[in-house]
Formats: sequence, C-alpha cells, structure tokens
Amino acid sequence: MRQHPPLTPIISALPSTVPFVGPEAQERDRGRAFRARIGANESSFGPSPRVIARMAGIARDMWMYCDPDNHDLKVTVAAHLGVGVENVVVGEGIDGLLSLVARMYVAPGDAVVTSLGAYPTFNFHIAGVGGRLVAVPYENDRESLGGLLAAVATDKAPLVYLSNPDNPMGSWWEAAELIRFIEALPETTMLVLDEAYSELGPTSALPPIDISRPNVIRMRTFSKAYGLAGIRCGYAVADAQVIRDFEKIRNHYGVSRMAQIAGVEALADQDYLKSVVARVASGRRRIAGIAEANGLKPLPSATNFVTLDCGDGAFALKVLQALLSRDVFIRKPMVPGLDRCIRVSVGLDHELDIFAEELPGALAAARGS
Amino acid sequence: MRQHPPLTPIISALPSTVPFVGPEAQERDRGRAFRARIGANESSFGPSPRVIARMAGIARDMWMYCDPDNHDLKVTVAAHLGVGVENVVVGEGIDGLLSLVARMYVAPGDAVVTSLGAYPTFNFHIAGVGGRLVAVPYENDRESLGGLLAAVATDKAPLVYLSNPDNPMGSWWEAAELIRFIEALPETTMLVLDEAYSELGPTSALPPIDISRPNVIRMRTFSKAYGLAGIRCGYAVADAQVIRDFEKIRNHYGVSRMAQIAGVEALADQDYLKSVVARVASGRRRIAGIAEANGLKPLPSATNFVTLDCGDGAFALKVLQALLSRDVFIRKPMVPGLDRCIRVSVGLDHELDIFAEELPGALAAARGS
Repeated sequence: MRQHPPLTPIISALPSTVPFVGPEAQERDRGRAFRARIGANESSFGPSPRVIARMAGIARDMWMYCDPDNHDLKVTVAAHLGVGVENVVVGEGIDGLLSLVARMYVAPGDAVVTSLGAYPTFNFHIAGVGGRLVAVPYENDRESLGGLLAAVATDKAPLVYLSNPDNPMGSWWEAAELIRFIEALPETTMLVLDEAYSELGPTSALPPIDISRPNVIRMRTFSKAYGLAGIRCGYAVADAQVIRDFEKIRNHYGVSRMAQIAGVEALADQDYLKSVVARVASGRRRIAGIAEANGLKPLPSATNFVTLDCGDGAFALKVLQALLSRDVFIRKPMVPGLDRCIRVSVGLDHELDIFAEELPGALAAARGS
Repeated sequence: MRQHPPLTPIISALPSTVPFVGPEAQERDRGRAFRARIGANESSFGPSPRVIARMAGIARDMWMYCDPDNHDLKVTVAAHLGVGVENVVVGEGIDGLLSLVARMYVAPGDAVVTSLGAYPTFNFHIAGVGGRLVAVPYENDRESLGGLLAAVATDKAPLVYLSNPDNPMGSWWEAAELIRFIEALPETTMLVLDEAYSELGPTSALPPIDISRPNVIRMRTFSKAYGLAGIRCGYAVADAQVIRDFEKIRNHYGVSRMAQIAGVEALADQDYLKSVVARVASGRRRIAGIAEANGLKPLPSATNFVTLDCGDGAFALKVLQALLSRDVFIRKPMVPGLDRCIRVSVGLDHELDIFAEELPGALAAARGS
C-alpha cells in the first residue's frame, strides 16, 4: 500500500461525502424515470426558440475556444442592466461565482453568515476554503435581515449571503427593506445578494443596481427564467474594482462558447421571457390550488416554485417519499423550522396534472404509514 | 469614497493583470478578423458530424441542469481507458481540474515545480492558492525530467506539473522514460501529467494507465483532437481516493449538460478521431515544409501544432508581429531559450495556404525592421 500525497489541512478536514444528488442519480437508483421533473426549480418551458435555433446553429463552431473575456455577453448584460462592462463578471453558473467569492473574501477560520436552510452550495464553497459558517434561523419563512445583521456584527464576518427571492421558501423582501439592510452592513463585510429568481418575482423586490457601493455583489443566472440551467452560465454585477478582483483567480476559459452565445441570444428575447414569467405565475396559482384542495398550505412565492406547508417535518418527509415513489420528482427543505414543507417547481401542464393526480394518494400513504 | 471589503492576504497579493488574451480580444483591438486562426492549437477540423448533430438535437433540453455526477460521461471515459468509474473525474476543461489540484495539494508558501515556459494557466492557478513556483528550464526543447526531479527533491514540492506531449514545444518523452520519472518521484509528491495532446502523438509516448499509483493524475481533454474546445470539458484519471478528494471542492454543476453529452458522443466516434489524427499529421508535414522552404527549422511535434525555430527571440517576435499584421493568428513562447520560436497550429488547407503566402513577406518585414 503506497502512501498518498497529503492534502492541504483545509481540504483534508473536509468530509468525503458528496452533497449533490441530482434527479438523474435518483433515476439510476430507482431504475425508472420520473414522470414529472418538478423538483430542481428548472424552467420546464425551456429556452426561447430563438436560443434553441442559435445553439443548434453554432454546434459546429465548438472547435473554437470560448472568448476568455466573455466580451459579447458582458456587453449585453451591461446594456440590459444599465451598468458598465467593467461592472460585470460571468461564471459557470452562480455556483462557480460563489466558489470564487469564498476564495476572495474568506480566510481559514473566518466567520461567514448565511441563513439556516439557505443555499447549500454556498455553504459547500465556504467549507472548501476553511470558513466557519454562522447560520441564522429564518423568521416567518423569510431570511431574517435583523438576524443576519446581528450575526455579521457579532462574528465580524467578512461575507454574508442573502437570496432574494429566497430558495427554498419562495419568500422575498421588498427593495426598501433590502436597502436598509445594505446600508446597515459594515463596509468591511461583502454581501452576496443571490437574485437567481429575480425575473420571476415582483420588481418591487429588486433594489436599483448601485455599483457605487463596493460591498454588494448581485448575482443572476440564465438557469431559471431563461430556461438554460444546462449550459451553466451566471453573472455578477458589482463595483469595478470588485469585478477586477475576480480576474485574479477565475477560470478564464470556464464558461463555454455555447453558453456565452446562448446568453446573448436569451437576453435579446425579452418577449419570450415575459411569456415564461406569465406561465410561471399561472403555474404557481395552479400548484397553490392543488395544495389547498388537499389541505396543504401554499406559501406566497416570488419564484418558479411553491413551497407547501405540510404541518410537521416527519409528515412532510413521508409526503416527499410517497411522491418520489409515485415518480414525481420534488424536493424539500430539511432543517428544523423549514422541514415541515415540500417544494414543488412549476412544470408543464401535464406534469402538474400528474402532481394533482398523485398528491391525494401520497398524502394518504403518508398519513397511513 | 467608500472602503472595499478586504480580500484575503493570498488574493490581495495577486496581480490585477489579466493573463489571457484570446484571438477575439485581438480581433476587437485590431477592428478586423483574422484570416487564419492557427494560434490556439484548436482543431479546425471541428467535432465529429455525429457530435454536431447530437448537440443540435439536444439544444432544446438545456432547461435541465447537468448531471452533477457526470455519470454517463465518466462511464464512457472509464470504458474507453479500461479503468473504473471511480477513477475518473470530469471538469471544466483541464484548466478547471488544475485549479482544483492546486487547492487540494498546495498550501500557501509550498513550492510547486513546473518547466520554465510550460502551461501558464497551471502557474496562474498555483499563484491563486499562494503557491511558490519553481520553474525548471527546458533541455533541448523538452521538459527536463532530471531537472524536475531535482527541483522536487530540493524544494520538497507537494506537486509537479509535466505535459506530455509538450506545449509549446511539441516535444515528447517515450513511455519508458516517463515511467522511470514517475518511479523516482517521492510518494509525497503528486504529479499532474497533462496529456491534452495524447491522441495526436505516438502511442509509444503514453505509459499504460496505472491507477494503483496514488501520486499520478493523468489529465485529458475534448478540446484538442476531439475538436470541442468551446464546450469546456476535460477529465482526470487517478487512484479512487484521489478522485474522491476532488468531490470535496469541485463545482458539481460546473460541466454543462451539452458538454457531458457531446463528450459521450465524441468518444463513440473513434473513426472520426482517426481521420483527424491523420489530417493533423498531414498538416504538420505541410507546416514543416513551408517553414523549411523559408529557412526556418521545424521542431518534431507530437501535437496539433509545429514549433518553428526562427533563430533568436527578437527576430521571432518580429515574425510573430508581422504575421499578426497580415491577419494570421499564431502565438509564440516568450521565455528565454524557447522564445526563438513561433508556434503554428494545424489549420484547414486554406489557412495553411494563407500562412504559406504570408510567411515570406513576414520574414522579409522582420529582417528589414
């Protein structure tokens, strides 16, 4: 038995468990495909037909490396948001950008503040740099702005994470409240404001983009409303110096040529986006109606999913399992306080039909077991 | 003027200069497209027609996230190489995997050994974790196996990088010599063996894959012979424990759905690969002939480019500039010893026609200036 080259102390201390289980892995384990894929907050409506045609047309160009500057996509994003090109960085989804932010602002042992039950991939990347997570409980199913601020102060955290609209609860804060939160943050604390669902909620929940404030990074994605989760492309908007700092460590050839071009085309088709937003709103109403008809309480949502209150955690887990066994892929939060819920993404009509058909049986099975 | 949240000491110490200039950036600066794109060692022959058709066909499926396990691609790679699925990890190109290896094995201040003038992206990622690069000069236009070994021992390096076949010189070591090198390495030193060009050189340069040796990571890519640089997909093969350690920090959703499926299809079309390998060999002969007809010395190459000895660094730089100004995109090594050369990638026939037409004028201009 030969010796292994030693890992660094930070990496050596990390668990070997793999934290991400995709629906494909579940299908492989089950030996059977899901009939409704409404668990990963994907957009079943797909990308714009213009985007699909463009991607198909450029498949043969994939022998060329991507532009390491992401120039055309940055120009398009900047024009779309009314900021400068120097205020935009593109990454391999928000996930890729979160990994970079962790490395930029978090030294080993530093406290990092998030909400208990918020995006696990953020936590994963903080652990990856040896950061110490401070998780603040949700309050009334919203991330607690006061609690986050207090934790930042107590733990002198260089970094705090907030998603708005929120995943997994679907809740949101109005812009005025977020602005107060931002103004109350220490200048030495960087805020990652994850706005993956920004296109799908009320515009009143989006503070104007203020790139003069050097301790806020806004992150958005093509994975949700734009229906392009599979191409892996997100972007961050911030003060120009902050954006330049990303250049120091990002994988410059990380975002595919396909993704860069698809992103440009997706932003150009705002009519399609509007149609998706309308269909998502309609789907949310339908999910809420199905839930209410079955005695579950739908929470208000500014996203492309609806979180359904099942009453308590043990029962909600049984409902999840019963739906999975009926070939309906959904997910649920697992932390205390949120674990009483299941989370159902807006799918196509026929997928919500299947959900409506299977929910009564799943509830009965959960009650009987 | 507001304060910026402080960067970590490691990131703060890094330069803000952006090290990657793509041909697109040069075209934007020039305001004019290149007529021959033969500078980035891409495969102008493109991906297999089967791969192109498959990519076009799945464009509409891009609303779905990628499989975070990269399961199907790992199974295909494993079968192709005769190793287990547990011996394969997939990343956003070799670049993405190099970034992870740096974080896994290099603590701040650790020495990392490479060759002076070898892959700059490796150096970039080592700098990104605060590693200290020890760069060993090439010997006779090959990476110096003896020099690398000596440096590893002197500096107690936890990590050493070797590309075989080599970029930017096109040279290679035979398998027997590499095996001796590997056997002489300390067990505590991890070797990254970058085999991006492995399909394009003699098979005698590829040691059998030995996953029982825990201090060797072999890296390969779809960017070169498979003609898929734009999709960003590479893989590493190693001991199962080493592969599990990648799971601790990799961006699990980093490799796009498009890339995973294209990779599977590309490996399935080995007939196309063989045709590309033959065309590349023919292109190398043509570039060598053009060089010799113009008094330049082509170096032997096991890659999809030919490095041409122009005599001295100042002259070679002028030749590069003269070719760029004639709309021929090529590159050249810049470090002492290698800088006497320019590097020309195998392109399509019409691109090599342009190179043949423009080289005499470029040489004359370089001599005259």
